[in-house]
Amino acid sequence: MKLALIGVGLIGGSAAAAWRAAGAVKQVTGFDTDPTAADRGCARGVLDAQAGSVAEAVDDADIVLVAVPVLAMRGVFREIARHAGRGAVITDVGSTKASVIEAASAAFGAGEGLTRFVPGHPIAGRELPGVESSDAQLFRGKLVITTPTSSTDPAALARVEALWQQAGARVARMDATDHDRIFAAVSHLPHLLAFGLVASIASEVDGDRKMEFAGAGFRDFTRIAASSPAMWRDVCLANRSTLSAELQRYRDLLAQLQTAVDAGDATFLERTFAAASEARRRHAPTLDAE
Amino acid sequence: MKLALIGVGLIGGSAAAAWRAAGAVKQVTGFDTDPTAADRGCARGVLDAQAGSVAEAVDDADIVLVAVPVLAMRGVFREIARHAGRGAVITDVGSTKASVIEAASAAFGAGEGLTRFVPGHPIAGRELPGVESSDAQLFRGKLVITTPTSSTDPAALARVEALWQQAGARVARMDATDHDRIFAAVSHLPHLLAFGLVASIASEVDGDRKMEFAGAGFRDFTRIAASSPAMWRDVCLANRSTLSAELQRYRDLLAQLQTAVDAGDATFLERTFAAASEARRRHAPTLDAE
Repeated sequence: MKLALIGVGLIGGSAAAAWRAAGAVKQVTGFDTDPTAADRGCARGVLDAQAGSVAEAVDDADIVLVAVPVLAMRGVFREIARHAGRGAVITDVGSTKASVIEAASAAFGAGEGLTRFVPGHPIAGRELPGVESSDAQLFRGKLVITTPTSSTDPAALARVEALWQQAGARVARMDATDHDRIFAAVSHLPHLLAFGLVASIASEVDGDRKMEFAGAGFRDFTRIAASSPAMWRDVCLANRSTLSAELQRYRDLLAQLQTAVDAGDATFLERTFAAASEARRRHAPTLDAE
Repeated sequence: MKLALIGVGLIGGSAAAAWRAAGAVKQVTGFDTDPTAADRGCARGVLDAQAGSVAEAVDDADIVLVAVPVLAMRGVFREIARHAGRGAVITDVGSTKASVIEAASAAFGAGEGLTRFVPGHPIAGRELPGVESSDAQLFRGKLVITTPTSSTDPAALARVEALWQQAGARVARMDATDHDRIFAAVSHLPHLLAFGLVASIASEVDGDRKMEFAGAGFRDFTRIAASSPAMWRDVCLANRSTLSAELQRYRDLLAQLQTAVDAGDATFLERTFAAASEARRRHAPTLDAE
Protein backbone atom coordinates (compact mmCIF):
# COMPACT_ATOMS: atom_id res chain seq x y z
CA MET A 1 0.00 0.00 0.00
CA LYS A 2 1.28 3.43 -0.93
CA LEU A 3 0.99 6.32 1.48
CA ALA A 4 1.20 9.99 0.53
CA LEU A 5 2.11 12.13 3.51
CA ILE A 6 1.25 15.80 3.12
CA GLY A 7 3.00 17.72 5.87
CA VAL A 8 6.17 16.03 7.09
CA GLY A 9 6.23 16.74 10.82
CA LEU A 10 6.02 14.92 14.13
CA ILE A 11 2.52 13.47 13.84
CA GLY A 12 2.55 12.61 10.15
CA GLY A 13 6.08 11.21 10.40
CA SER A 14 5.15 9.11 13.42
CA ALA A 15 2.04 7.73 11.67
CA ALA A 16 4.07 6.81 8.58
CA ALA A 17 6.71 5.16 10.76
CA ALA A 18 4.08 3.26 12.78
CA TRP A 19 2.21 2.03 9.71
CA ARG A 20 5.42 0.98 8.02
CA ALA A 21 6.53 -0.86 11.16
CA ALA A 22 3.16 -2.66 11.25
CA GLY A 23 3.58 -3.70 7.61
CA ALA A 24 0.49 -1.69 6.62
CA VAL A 25 2.31 0.57 4.15
CA LYS A 26 5.21 -0.32 1.89
CA GLN A 27 5.99 2.98 0.21
CA VAL A 28 5.80 6.51 1.66
CA THR A 29 6.08 9.65 -0.45
CA GLY A 30 6.09 12.97 1.36
CA PHE A 31 5.52 16.56 0.48
CA ASP A 32 6.11 19.58 2.68
CA THR A 33 6.17 23.28 1.79
CA ASP A 34 9.48 23.29 3.70
CA PRO A 35 11.73 21.08 1.51
CA THR A 36 14.17 20.57 4.41
CA ALA A 37 11.39 18.77 6.30
CA ALA A 38 11.06 16.21 3.51
CA ASP A 39 14.86 15.90 3.41
CA ARG A 40 14.89 15.17 7.14
CA GLY A 41 12.04 12.69 6.66
CA CYS A 42 14.08 10.82 4.07
CA ALA A 43 17.19 10.94 6.24
CA ARG A 44 15.27 9.44 9.16
CA GLY A 45 13.86 6.69 6.94
CA VAL A 46 10.28 7.88 7.42
CA LEU A 47 9.93 8.75 3.71
CA ASP A 48 11.08 6.68 0.75
CA ALA A 49 10.77 9.65 -1.57
CA GLN A 50 9.91 13.30 -1.52
CA ALA A 51 7.61 14.92 -4.02
CA GLY A 52 7.84 18.42 -5.43
CA SER A 53 4.12 19.08 -5.02
CA VAL A 54 0.93 17.71 -3.49
CA ALA A 55 -0.04 16.58 -7.01
CA GLU A 56 3.11 14.52 -7.39
CA ALA A 57 2.87 13.05 -3.87
CA VAL A 58 -0.70 11.79 -4.22
CA ASP A 59 -0.22 10.35 -7.70
CA ASP A 60 -1.13 6.63 -7.39
CA ALA A 61 -1.36 6.77 -3.55
CA ASP A 62 -3.79 4.41 -1.82
CA ILE A 63 -3.93 6.48 1.36
CA VAL A 64 -3.36 10.22 1.67
CA LEU A 65 -2.60 11.48 5.19
CA VAL A 66 -2.92 15.24 5.62
CA ALA A 67 -0.85 16.45 8.58
CA VAL A 68 -0.52 20.20 8.09
CA PRO A 69 -1.81 23.02 10.35
CA VAL A 70 -5.61 22.94 10.12
CA LEU A 71 -6.03 26.24 8.29
CA ALA A 72 -3.65 25.02 5.57
CA MET A 73 -5.87 22.00 4.86
CA ARG A 74 -8.29 23.80 2.53
CA GLY A 75 -5.59 24.45 -0.08
CA VAL A 76 -4.11 20.97 0.32
CA PHE A 77 -7.53 19.32 -0.09
CA ARG A 78 -8.09 21.27 -3.33
CA GLU A 79 -4.88 19.86 -4.78
CA ILE A 80 -5.76 16.36 -3.61
CA ALA A 81 -9.22 16.63 -5.18
CA ARG A 82 -7.62 17.45 -8.51
CA HIS A 83 -4.83 14.91 -8.49
CA ALA A 84 -5.54 11.88 -6.28
CA GLY A 85 -6.80 8.67 -7.87
CA ARG A 86 -10.49 7.82 -7.49
CA GLY A 87 -9.74 4.91 -5.17
CA ALA A 88 -7.54 6.83 -2.71
CA VAL A 89 -8.76 7.21 0.86
CA ILE A 90 -7.98 10.60 2.37
CA THR A 91 -7.64 11.25 6.09
CA ASP A 92 -6.19 13.91 8.38
CA VAL A 93 -4.82 14.42 11.88
CA GLY A 94 -6.20 17.90 12.61
CA SER A 95 -6.96 18.94 16.20
CA THR A 96 -10.24 20.56 15.12
CA LYS A 97 -12.81 18.67 13.12
CA ALA A 98 -15.77 20.88 12.05
CA SER A 99 -13.49 23.32 10.20
CA VAL A 100 -11.59 20.46 8.54
CA ILE A 101 -14.80 18.82 7.36
CA GLU A 102 -15.97 22.15 5.99
CA ALA A 103 -12.67 22.56 4.13
CA ALA A 104 -12.98 19.03 2.76
CA SER A 105 -16.56 19.68 1.62
CA ALA A 106 -15.42 22.79 -0.19
CA ALA A 107 -12.67 20.88 -1.97
CA PHE A 108 -14.23 17.48 -2.62
CA GLY A 109 -17.85 18.61 -2.80
CA ALA A 110 -20.47 17.86 -0.17
CA GLY A 111 -22.28 14.53 -0.40
CA GLU A 112 -20.60 12.00 -2.68
CA GLY A 113 -17.32 13.92 -2.87
CA LEU A 114 -16.86 13.44 0.86
CA THR A 115 -17.32 9.65 0.84
CA ARG A 116 -13.60 8.89 0.76
CA PHE A 117 -12.57 11.49 3.37
CA VAL A 118 -12.20 10.22 6.94
CA PRO A 119 -11.71 13.01 9.51
CA GLY A 120 -9.35 11.88 12.29
CA HIS A 121 -7.56 13.20 15.36
CA PRO A 122 -4.91 11.22 17.23
CA ILE A 123 -4.72 12.38 20.88
CA ALA A 124 -0.97 12.07 21.04
CA GLY A 125 2.03 14.28 20.64
CA ARG A 126 5.10 15.61 22.24
CA GLU A 127 6.48 19.09 22.54
CA LEU A 128 9.49 18.55 20.29
CA PRO A 129 8.10 19.16 16.84
CA GLY A 130 9.53 18.04 13.52
CA VAL A 131 9.85 14.75 11.68
CA GLU A 132 13.20 14.21 13.41
CA SER A 133 11.23 13.62 16.63
CA SER A 134 8.87 11.11 15.00
CA ASP A 135 8.37 7.81 16.74
CA ALA A 136 6.60 4.67 15.52
CA GLN A 137 5.45 4.09 19.13
CA LEU A 138 3.86 7.52 19.58
CA PHE A 139 0.27 6.25 19.26
CA ARG A 140 0.62 3.09 21.31
CA GLY A 141 -2.14 3.00 23.94
CA LYS A 142 -3.38 6.42 22.83
CA LEU A 143 -6.80 7.40 21.60
CA VAL A 144 -7.57 8.30 17.98
CA ILE A 145 -10.91 9.95 17.36
CA THR A 146 -12.68 9.70 14.02
CA THR A 147 -15.58 12.02 13.22
CA PRO A 148 -17.24 10.49 10.15
CA THR A 149 -19.92 12.53 8.38
CA SER A 150 -23.17 11.10 7.06
CA SER A 151 -21.37 10.84 3.68
CA THR A 152 -18.31 8.90 4.87
CA ASP A 153 -17.95 5.55 3.14
CA PRO A 154 -17.99 2.84 5.86
CA ALA A 155 -15.24 0.93 4.05
CA ALA A 156 -12.96 3.99 3.98
CA LEU A 157 -13.68 4.61 7.66
CA ALA A 158 -12.89 1.00 8.56
CA ARG A 159 -9.65 1.18 6.60
CA VAL A 160 -8.42 4.30 8.41
CA GLU A 161 -9.50 2.99 11.81
CA ALA A 162 -7.68 -0.30 11.15
CA LEU A 163 -4.50 1.64 10.34
CA TRP A 164 -4.63 3.46 13.68
CA GLN A 165 -5.28 0.21 15.50
CA GLN A 166 -2.24 -1.28 13.77
CA ALA A 167 -0.28 1.68 15.22
CA GLY A 168 -1.39 0.50 18.67
CA ALA A 169 -4.11 3.11 19.21
CA ARG A 170 -7.68 2.76 20.46
CA VAL A 171 -10.28 4.32 18.18
CA ALA A 172 -13.41 6.20 19.26
CA ARG A 173 -15.99 7.74 16.96
CA MET A 174 -17.83 10.93 17.75
CA ASP A 175 -19.63 13.81 16.16
CA ALA A 176 -17.34 16.61 14.92
CA THR A 177 -19.15 19.31 16.90
CA ASP A 178 -18.98 17.22 20.04
CA HIS A 179 -15.26 16.68 19.41
CA ASP A 180 -14.60 20.39 19.01
CA ARG A 181 -16.49 21.23 22.20
CA ILE A 182 -14.60 18.63 24.25
CA PHE A 183 -11.17 19.55 22.94
CA ALA A 184 -11.77 23.29 23.23
CA ALA A 185 -11.99 22.64 26.99
CA VAL A 186 -9.33 19.99 27.58
CA SER A 187 -6.78 20.83 24.89
CA HIS A 188 -7.18 24.10 22.99
CA LEU A 189 -7.84 26.29 26.05
CA PRO A 190 -5.01 24.75 28.14
CA HIS A 191 -2.56 25.35 25.28
CA LEU A 192 -3.66 28.97 24.96
CA LEU A 193 -3.39 29.44 28.74
CA ALA A 194 0.08 27.87 28.94
CA PHE A 195 1.38 29.87 25.97
CA GLY A 196 -0.12 32.96 27.60
CA LEU A 197 1.50 32.38 30.99
CA VAL A 198 4.98 31.80 29.61
CA ALA A 199 4.64 34.74 27.21
CA SER A 200 3.48 36.93 30.10
CA ILE A 201 6.38 35.99 32.36
CA ALA A 202 8.93 36.09 29.51
CA SER A 203 7.89 39.66 28.71
CA GLU A 204 8.77 40.85 32.22
CA VAL A 205 12.21 42.39 32.66
CA ASP A 206 13.13 39.72 35.20
CA GLY A 207 11.22 36.94 33.44
CA ASP A 208 14.28 34.80 32.81
CA ARG A 209 15.38 35.06 36.41
CA LYS A 210 11.90 34.05 37.58
CA MET A 211 11.91 30.98 35.35
CA GLU A 212 15.34 29.97 36.67
CA PHE A 213 13.79 29.35 40.07
CA ALA A 214 10.75 27.47 38.83
CA GLY A 215 10.09 23.98 40.10
CA ALA A 216 8.32 20.85 38.90
CA GLY A 217 4.86 22.42 39.06
CA PHE A 218 5.80 25.13 36.57
CA ARG A 219 7.66 22.60 34.44
CA ASP A 220 4.56 20.45 33.99
CA PHE A 221 2.11 23.33 33.75
CA THR A 222 4.07 24.96 30.94
CA ARG A 223 5.31 21.89 29.07
CA ILE A 224 2.71 22.39 26.32
CA ALA A 225 3.88 25.99 25.86
CA ALA A 226 6.85 24.60 23.90
CA SER A 227 4.46 23.28 21.23
CA SER A 228 4.33 24.50 17.63
CA PRO A 229 3.09 28.12 17.48
CA ALA A 230 1.80 27.76 13.89
CA MET A 231 -0.15 24.61 14.63
CA TRP A 232 -1.83 26.09 17.69
CA ARG A 233 -2.48 29.47 16.07
CA ASP A 234 -4.51 27.56 13.45
CA VAL A 235 -6.31 25.42 16.03
CA CYS A 236 -7.37 28.50 17.99
CA LEU A 237 -8.71 30.17 14.87
CA ALA A 238 -10.33 27.07 13.37
CA ASN A 239 -12.31 26.40 16.57
CA ARG A 240 -12.64 30.04 17.50
CA SER A 241 -16.26 30.36 18.60
CA THR A 242 -16.19 27.29 20.85
CA LEU A 243 -12.76 28.20 22.23
CA SER A 244 -13.84 31.77 22.83
CA ALA A 245 -16.85 30.59 24.84
CA GLU A 246 -14.64 28.34 26.99
CA LEU A 247 -12.13 31.14 27.45
CA GLN A 248 -14.87 33.56 28.48
CA ARG A 249 -16.14 31.08 31.05
CA TYR A 250 -12.62 30.69 32.41
CA ARG A 251 -11.96 34.44 32.47
CA ASP A 252 -15.17 34.90 34.47
CA LEU A 253 -13.90 32.43 37.06
CA LEU A 254 -10.49 34.14 37.17
CA ALA A 255 -12.23 37.45 37.85
CA GLN A 256 -14.06 35.81 40.77
CA LEU A 257 -10.83 34.27 42.04
CA GLN A 258 -9.05 37.63 41.91
CA THR A 259 -11.90 39.26 43.82
CA ALA A 260 -11.58 36.51 46.42
CA VAL A 261 -7.79 36.94 46.68
CA ASP A 262 -8.15 40.72 47.04
CA ALA A 263 -10.93 40.41 49.61
CA GLY A 264 -9.26 37.61 51.58
CA ASP A 265 -12.22 35.32 50.86
CA ALA A 266 -10.70 32.05 52.10
CA THR A 267 -13.99 30.17 51.73
CA PHE A 268 -14.38 30.83 48.01
CA LEU A 269 -10.74 29.97 47.31
CA GLU A 270 -10.82 26.77 49.29
CA ARG A 271 -14.15 25.68 47.80
CA THR A 272 -12.88 26.25 44.25
CA PHE A 273 -9.51 24.59 44.89
CA ALA A 274 -11.16 21.63 46.64
CA ALA A 275 -13.59 21.07 43.74
CA ALA A 276 -10.63 21.07 41.35
CA SER A 277 -8.47 18.84 43.53
CA GLU A 278 -11.28 16.33 43.96
CA ALA A 279 -12.01 16.23 40.21
CA ARG A 280 -8.33 15.99 39.23
CA ARG A 281 -7.74 13.13 41.65
CA ARG A 282 -10.90 11.36 40.51
CA HIS A 283 -9.64 11.46 36.91
CA ALA A 284 -6.05 10.61 37.84
CA PRO A 285 -6.35 6.87 37.10
CA THR A 286 -7.17 7.64 33.45
CA LEU A 287 -5.10 10.80 33.03
CA ASP A 288 -1.95 9.62 34.73
CA ALA A 289 -2.08 6.28 32.90
CA GLU A 290 -1.65 8.30 29.67
CA MET B 1 19.78 16.03 67.66
CA LYS B 2 16.09 16.24 68.45
CA LEU B 3 13.63 17.49 65.85
CA ALA B 4 10.17 18.79 66.60
CA LEU B 5 7.95 18.62 63.54
CA ILE B 6 4.89 20.85 63.69
CA GLY B 7 2.53 19.84 60.90
CA VAL B 8 2.90 16.20 59.91
CA GLY B 9 2.38 16.19 56.16
CA LEU B 10 4.25 15.47 52.95
CA ILE B 11 6.95 18.14 53.20
CA GLY B 12 7.58 17.98 56.93
CA GLY B 13 7.50 14.20 56.89
CA SER B 14 9.91 14.04 53.97
CA ALA B 15 12.32 16.46 55.67
CA ALA B 16 12.25 14.43 58.88
CA ALA B 17 12.82 11.22 56.92
CA ALA B 18 15.68 12.76 54.90
CA TRP B 19 17.42 14.18 57.97
CA ARG B 20 17.06 10.92 59.84
CA ALA B 21 18.45 8.99 56.86
CA ALA B 22 21.42 11.38 56.76
CA GLY B 23 22.07 10.82 60.46
CA ALA B 24 21.40 14.50 61.19
CA VAL B 25 18.50 13.88 63.58
CA LYS B 26 18.09 10.99 65.99
CA GLN B 27 14.69 11.66 67.50
CA VAL B 28 11.57 13.14 65.85
CA THR B 29 8.52 14.22 67.79
CA GLY B 30 5.54 15.41 65.79
CA PHE B 31 2.41 17.40 66.44
CA ASP B 32 -0.51 17.89 64.08
CA THR B 33 -3.96 19.32 64.75
CA ASP B 34 -5.20 16.17 63.00
CA PRO B 35 -4.13 13.38 65.39
CA THR B 36 -4.51 10.77 62.63
CA ALA B 37 -1.69 12.51 60.73
CA ALA B 38 0.68 11.98 63.65
CA ASP B 39 -0.52 8.37 63.92
CA ARG B 40 0.28 7.84 60.25
CA GLY B 41 3.66 9.51 60.77
CA CYS B 42 4.47 7.06 63.55
CA ALA B 43 3.20 4.13 61.49
CA ARG B 44 5.45 5.13 58.59
CA GLY B 45 8.46 5.48 60.91
CA VAL B 46 8.79 9.20 60.22
CA LEU B 47 8.00 10.09 63.85
CA ASP B 48 9.30 8.41 66.96
CA ALA B 49 6.62 9.99 69.08
CA GLN B 50 3.61 12.21 68.79
CA ALA B 51 2.94 15.11 71.09
CA GLY B 52 -0.42 16.33 72.31
CA SER B 53 0.44 19.98 71.73
CA VAL B 54 3.01 22.29 70.16
CA ALA B 55 4.31 22.96 73.68
CA GLU B 56 4.93 19.28 74.32
CA ALA B 57 6.51 18.71 70.88
CA VAL B 58 9.06 21.52 71.15
CA ASP B 59 10.09 20.73 74.72
CA ASP B 60 13.87 20.07 74.60
CA ALA B 61 13.97 20.11 70.75
CA ASP B 62 17.16 21.32 69.07
CA ILE B 63 15.43 22.07 65.78
CA VAL B 64 11.78 22.98 65.27
CA LEU B 65 10.46 22.57 61.73
CA VAL B 66 7.15 24.31 61.07
CA ALA B 67 5.34 22.71 58.13
CA VAL B 68 1.75 23.91 58.41
CA PRO B 69 -0.27 26.06 55.95
CA VAL B 70 1.30 29.53 56.02
CA LEU B 71 -1.64 31.31 57.66
CA ALA B 72 -1.55 28.83 60.53
CA MET B 73 2.07 29.73 61.32
CA ARG B 74 1.28 32.79 63.43
CA GLY B 75 -0.47 30.72 66.11
CA VAL B 76 2.17 27.98 65.97
CA PHE B 77 5.00 30.50 66.35
CA ARG B 78 3.30 31.97 69.43
CA GLU B 79 3.27 28.56 71.07
CA ILE B 80 6.87 27.92 70.08
CA ALA B 81 7.94 31.30 71.50
CA ARG B 82 6.42 30.36 74.85
CA HIS B 83 7.65 26.78 75.06
CA ALA B 84 10.81 26.13 73.03
CA GLY B 85 14.20 26.13 74.76
CA ARG B 86 16.46 29.16 74.25
CA GLY B 87 18.91 27.17 72.16
CA ALA B 88 16.38 25.78 69.69
CA VAL B 89 16.64 26.82 66.05
CA ILE B 90 13.27 27.36 64.37
CA THR B 91 12.69 27.07 60.64
CA ASP B 92 9.77 26.65 58.27
CA VAL B 93 8.89 25.37 54.78
CA GLY B 94 6.27 27.95 53.82
CA SER B 95 5.75 28.85 50.15
CA THR B 96 5.51 32.57 51.00
CA LYS B 97 8.17 34.30 53.00
CA ALA B 98 7.27 37.93 53.82
CA SER B 99 4.07 36.91 55.60
CA VAL B 100 5.87 34.16 57.51
CA ILE B 101 8.61 36.53 58.65
CA GLU B 102 5.94 38.99 59.77
CA ALA B 103 4.20 36.23 61.76
CA ALA B 104 7.52 35.23 63.30
CA SER B 105 8.29 38.83 64.25
CA ALA B 106 4.90 39.11 65.93
CA ALA B 107 5.51 35.94 67.93
CA PHE B 108 9.24 36.09 68.70
CA GLY B 109 9.62 39.86 68.68
CA ALA B 110 11.43 41.83 65.99
CA GLY B 111 15.20 42.17 66.31
CA GLU B 112 16.78 39.81 68.82
CA GLY B 113 13.71 37.57 69.01
CA LEU B 114 14.12 36.73 65.34
CA THR B 115 17.77 35.64 65.58
CA ARG B 116 17.01 31.95 65.85
CA PHE B 117 14.31 31.86 63.17
CA VAL B 118 15.46 30.79 59.68
CA PRO B 119 12.81 31.28 56.98
CA GLY B 120 13.02 28.51 54.36
CA HIS B 121 11.23 27.20 51.30
CA PRO B 122 12.09 23.87 49.65
CA ILE B 123 11.08 23.92 45.96
CA ALA B 124 9.89 20.35 45.96
CA GLY B 125 6.69 18.47 46.36
CA ARG B 126 4.31 16.07 44.81
CA GLU B 127 0.58 16.15 44.38
CA LEU B 128 -0.21 13.30 46.74
CA PRO B 129 -0.35 15.04 50.10
CA GLY B 130 -0.01 13.50 53.53
CA VAL B 131 2.81 12.03 55.57
CA GLU B 132 2.07 8.63 54.02
CA SER B 133 3.51 10.01 50.76
CA SER B 134 6.67 11.30 52.42
CA ASP B 135 9.98 10.37 50.87
CA ALA B 136 13.51 10.84 52.20
CA GLN B 137 14.64 11.44 48.58
CA LEU B 138 12.13 14.23 47.88
CA PHE B 139 14.69 17.04 48.13
CA ARG B 140 17.56 15.36 46.28
CA GLY B 141 18.83 17.71 43.57
CA LYS B 142 16.10 20.24 44.42
CA LEU B 143 16.51 23.86 45.45
CA VAL B 144 15.85 25.14 48.97
CA ILE B 145 15.61 28.89 49.36
CA THR B 146 16.41 30.62 52.62
CA THR B 147 15.39 34.23 53.17
CA PRO B 148 17.33 35.35 56.26
CA THR B 149 16.45 38.70 57.78
CA SER B 150 18.99 41.21 59.07
CA SER B 151 18.38 39.66 62.52
CA THR B 152 19.00 36.04 61.57
CA ASP B 153 21.86 34.47 63.49
CA PRO B 154 24.49 33.29 60.95
CA ALA B 155 25.08 30.11 62.99
CA ALA B 156 21.37 29.23 62.97
CA LEU B 157 21.23 29.92 59.22
CA ALA B 158 24.27 27.72 58.59
CA ARG B 159 22.76 24.93 60.64
CA VAL B 160 19.48 24.93 58.71
CA GLU B 161 21.24 25.20 55.36
CA ALA B 162 23.52 22.29 56.29
CA LEU B 163 20.45 20.18 57.10
CA TRP B 164 18.97 20.80 53.65
CA GLN B 165 22.28 20.01 52.02
CA GLN B 166 22.36 16.74 53.96
CA ALA B 167 18.95 16.01 52.43
CA GLY B 168 20.61 16.36 49.01
CA ALA B 169 19.31 19.84 48.20
CA ARG B 170 21.07 22.91 46.82
CA VAL B 171 20.58 26.06 48.90
CA ALA B 172 20.11 29.60 47.58
CA ARG B 173 19.62 32.72 49.68
CA MET B 174 17.45 35.61 48.64
CA ASP B 175 15.44 38.48 49.98
CA ALA B 176 11.92 37.54 51.14
CA THR B 177 10.23 40.14 48.94
CA ASP B 178 12.20 38.97 45.93
CA HIS B 179 11.21 35.39 46.74
CA ASP B 180 7.53 36.25 46.95
CA ARG B 181 7.62 38.12 43.64
CA ILE B 182 9.34 35.24 41.83
CA PHE B 183 7.10 32.53 43.22
CA ALA B 184 3.91 34.52 42.69
CA ALA B 185 4.74 34.24 38.97
CA VAL B 186 6.15 30.72 38.64
CA SER B 187 4.28 28.89 41.38
CA HIS B 188 1.36 30.63 43.06
CA LEU B 189 -0.28 31.90 39.85
CA PRO B 190 0.11 28.58 37.96
CA HIS B 191 -1.51 26.74 40.87
CA LEU B 192 -4.43 29.18 40.94
CA LEU B 193 -4.81 28.86 37.15
CA ALA B 194 -4.73 25.06 37.19
CA PHE B 195 -7.20 24.83 40.07
CA GLY B 196 -9.38 27.30 38.19
CA LEU B 197 -9.36 25.38 34.92
CA VAL B 198 -10.23 22.04 36.48
CA ALA B 199 -12.91 23.64 38.67
CA SER B 200 -14.35 25.39 35.61
CA ILE B 201 -14.52 22.20 33.53
CA ALA B 202 -15.73 20.09 36.47
CA SER B 203 -18.64 22.49 37.00
CA GLU B 204 -19.93 21.93 33.46
CA VAL B 205 -22.70 19.34 33.08
CA ASP B 206 -20.50 17.28 30.75
CA GLY B 207 -17.25 18.07 32.59
CA ASP B 208 -16.49 14.47 33.48
CA ARG B 209 -17.03 13.33 29.90
CA LYS B 210 -14.68 16.06 28.68
CA MET B 211 -11.95 15.00 31.08
CA GLU B 212 -12.30 11.37 29.97
CA PHE B 213 -11.00 12.34 26.54
CA ALA B 214 -8.13 14.49 27.78
CA GLY B 215 -4.61 13.66 26.69
CA ALA B 216 -1.10 14.14 28.01
CA GLY B 217 -1.17 17.92 27.62
CA PHE B 218 -4.14 18.27 29.98
CA ARG B 219 -2.64 15.70 32.32
CA ASP B 220 0.54 17.74 32.77
CA PHE B 221 -1.16 21.14 32.74
CA THR B 222 -3.54 20.13 35.53
CA ARG B 223 -1.28 17.91 37.64
CA ILE B 224 -0.83 20.68 40.24
CA ALA B 225 -4.62 21.03 40.53
CA ALA B 226 -4.58 17.88 42.68
CA SER B 227 -2.53 19.73 45.33
CA SER B 228 -3.75 20.54 48.84
CA PRO B 229 -6.60 23.11 48.72
CA ALA B 230 -5.90 24.38 52.26
CA MET B 231 -2.20 24.89 51.64
CA TRP B 232 -2.79 26.83 48.42
CA ARG B 233 -5.69 28.84 49.83
CA ASP B 234 -3.26 30.11 52.46
CA VAL B 235 -0.48 30.77 49.94
CA CYS B 236 -2.82 32.84 47.75
CA LEU B 237 -3.96 34.90 50.71
CA ALA B 238 -0.53 35.28 52.33
CA ASN B 239 0.99 36.62 49.11
CA ARG B 240 -2.18 38.30 47.94
CA SER B 241 -1.01 41.68 46.68
CA THR B 242 1.86 40.28 44.63
CA LEU B 243 -0.26 37.40 43.33
CA SER B 244 -3.10 39.75 42.47
CA ALA B 245 -0.75 41.93 40.41
CA GLU B 246 0.54 38.89 38.50
CA LEU B 247 -3.00 37.63 37.98
CA GLN B 248 -4.12 41.03 36.69
CA ARG B 249 -1.23 41.07 34.22
CA TYR B 250 -2.20 37.60 33.03
CA ARG B 251 -5.90 38.45 32.76
CA ASP B 252 -4.99 41.47 30.62
CA LEU B 253 -3.11 39.17 28.24
CA LEU B 254 -6.01 36.70 28.17
CA ALA B 255 -8.33 39.55 27.21
CA GLN B 256 -5.99 40.42 24.32
CA LEU B 257 -5.80 36.76 23.29
CA GLN B 258 -9.58 36.44 23.28
CA THR B 259 -9.89 39.58 21.16
CA ALA B 260 -7.37 38.06 18.74
CA VAL B 261 -9.25 34.73 18.63
CA ASP B 262 -12.56 36.50 18.02
CA ALA B 263 -11.10 38.78 15.36
CA GLY B 264 -9.09 36.04 13.65
CA ASP B 265 -5.84 37.91 14.38
CA ALA B 266 -3.39 35.18 13.40
CA THR B 267 -0.40 37.48 13.75
CA PHE B 268 -1.00 38.32 17.40
CA LEU B 269 -1.67 34.70 18.30
CA GLU B 270 1.40 33.40 16.52
CA ARG B 271 3.64 36.13 17.93
CA THR B 272 2.47 35.40 21.49
CA PHE B 273 2.70 31.62 21.09
CA ALA B 274 6.14 31.88 19.47
CA ALA B 275 7.49 34.06 22.29
CA ALA B 276 6.24 31.48 24.79
CA SER B 277 7.53 28.50 22.86
CA GLU B 278 10.95 30.08 22.46
CA ALA B 279 11.18 30.94 26.17
CA ARG B 280 9.91 27.54 27.31
CA ARG B 281 12.41 25.73 25.10
CA ARG B 282 15.23 28.02 26.22
CA HIS B 283 14.49 27.12 29.85
CA ALA B 284 13.90 23.43 29.13
CA PRO B 285 17.42 22.29 30.09
CA THR B 286 16.89 23.58 33.64
CA LEU B 287 13.16 22.93 33.95
CA ASP B 288 13.09 19.47 32.46
CA ALA B 289 16.12 18.41 34.50
CA GLU B 290 13.98 19.02 37.60
